[in-house]
Amino acid sequence: MIDLYTWTTPNGRKIPIALEELGLAYRVHPVDIGQNQQFAPDFLAISPNNKIPAIIDHDAPDGPQSVFESGAILVYLAEKTGKLLAASGPARVAALEWTFWQVGGLGPMAGQLGYFALRAPEPIELAIDRFADEVRRLLGVMEGRLEKVRYLAGDDYSIADIACFAWTQAALETLEKVQPDRPPLPAVRAWLQRIGERAAVRRGMAVPKV
Amino acid sequence: MIDLYTWTTPNGRKIPIALEELGLAYRVHPVDIGQNQQFAPDFLAISPNNKIPAIIDHDAPDGPQSVFESGAILVYLAEKTGKLLAASGPARVAALEWTFWQVGGLGPMAGQLGYFALRAPEPIELAIDRFADEVRRLLGVMEGRLEKVRYLAGDDYSIADIACFAWTQAALETLEKVQPDRPPLPAVRAWLQRIGERAAVRRGMAVPKV
Ligand SMILES: N[C@@H](CCC(=O)N[C@@H](CS)C(=O)NCC(=O)O)C(=O)O
Ligand SMILES: N[C@@H](CCC(=O)N[C@@H](CS)C(=O)NCC(=O)O)C(=O)O
Repeated sequence: MIDLYTWTTPNGRKIPIALEELGLAYRVHPVDIGQNQQFAPDFLAISPNNKIPAIIDHDAPDGPQSVFESGAILVYLAEKTGKLLAASGPARVAALEWTFWQVGGLGPMAGQLGYFALRAPEPIELAIDRFADEVRRLLGVMEGRLEKVRYLAGDDYSIADIACFAWTQAALETLEKVQPDRPPLPAVRAWLQRIGERAAVRRGMAVPKV
Repeated sequence: MIDLYTWTTPNGRKIPIALEELGLAYRVHPVDIGQNQQFAPDFLAISPNNKIPAIIDHDAPDGPQSVFESGAILVYLAEKTGKLLAASGPARVAALEWTFWQVGGLGPMAGQLGYFALRAPEPIELAIDRFADEVRRLLGVMEGRLEKVRYLAGDDYSIADIACFAWTQAALETLEKVQPDRPPLPAVRAWLQRIGERAAVRRGMAVPKV
């Protein structure tokens, strides 16, 4: 059994999607970050950076194993099951490249765009433009990749697609509120549709129920 | 032989440090991002996100293997050599957690602090405070970890320490320019000293020579 600590955000959704894809049994513990539940001592003990998602795997070989950081959890679950991440070779490299690209680029930049465009106490044009331009650039990089391959790691669906899915949806949505010219991105939009139709992705996107 | 494409920045330094630690032979190709050399078609072919660092490993089992994203390169080199990242168990999890934490948190947040505090065309207090507070929080999270363990992954030096080293130096330096009260962070500072004294780290921090 896996305990899943998560919330209704793009980072939060990655892990229920992966658990659904992998058919692993899990129990959901919603951590309402709007209510500062991520600062509860029990949660900080497994996620010292006070962020969701995090898990505890009670069936790990060395006893209960907690994992924080969505990228580390995705790699952990993939290696536990031998699925969604090739064991070696170019497909493994590509899956890791695009997973790190999401965690280090698309996620934080779309996150800052969301803050400055939608939630900041004052609208700061310099910051909104900076992050909107960067998100647009990042989605363009993804477009270039998906013009050439069906999934981010190549032929096969992987943790990289799971990492990017909800963030790409969120990034496009925010960008379209801020910049008047809707970016076409046909390959990205086709990929979003392809991923979004997966039954496990639909189930995972509905977790946590709140 | 490994071709290393890099520059004199915290992300750029991670990979020469890892290559020096692992004793792998490499050739350095400086990519001057101040001169927009990251947009050269030859470089984009291996690093489509137009960012350093990137590598090409000419001794990969399936033929020349390029890798972009510093986190993916660190994992790749560690798995190639069987060093700096445990093959399984809690030490592997911890190294991945803190590597992703750097790539998704400390790196982008210290990067944005550097921009808004030192390079933006106008000083925007809201943005400077936002990123300074977040960098201070992140360094505090690292302090909590390093109060309990010698290295970020636990007992052993790993790719997580390599990922965080130059960014922690840079983050502290920028923070101290912006916020008057110098954060004490004794465990972080002792760790910085411990890592900085390693011969491979000194050699890696001097790459590329420009
Ligand atoms: N790099 C982290 C980012 C996680 C993250 O940003 N989580 C947000 C919600 S999407 C959070 O928990 N925020 C609460 C807080 O920072 O206090 C990951 O990939 O897991
Ligand atoms: N997440 C990336 C970040 C790499 C990065 O930000 N590289 C910067 C220099 S430190 C760069 O190449 N910037 C040039 C550009 O963005 O055009 C990684 O960890 O490799």
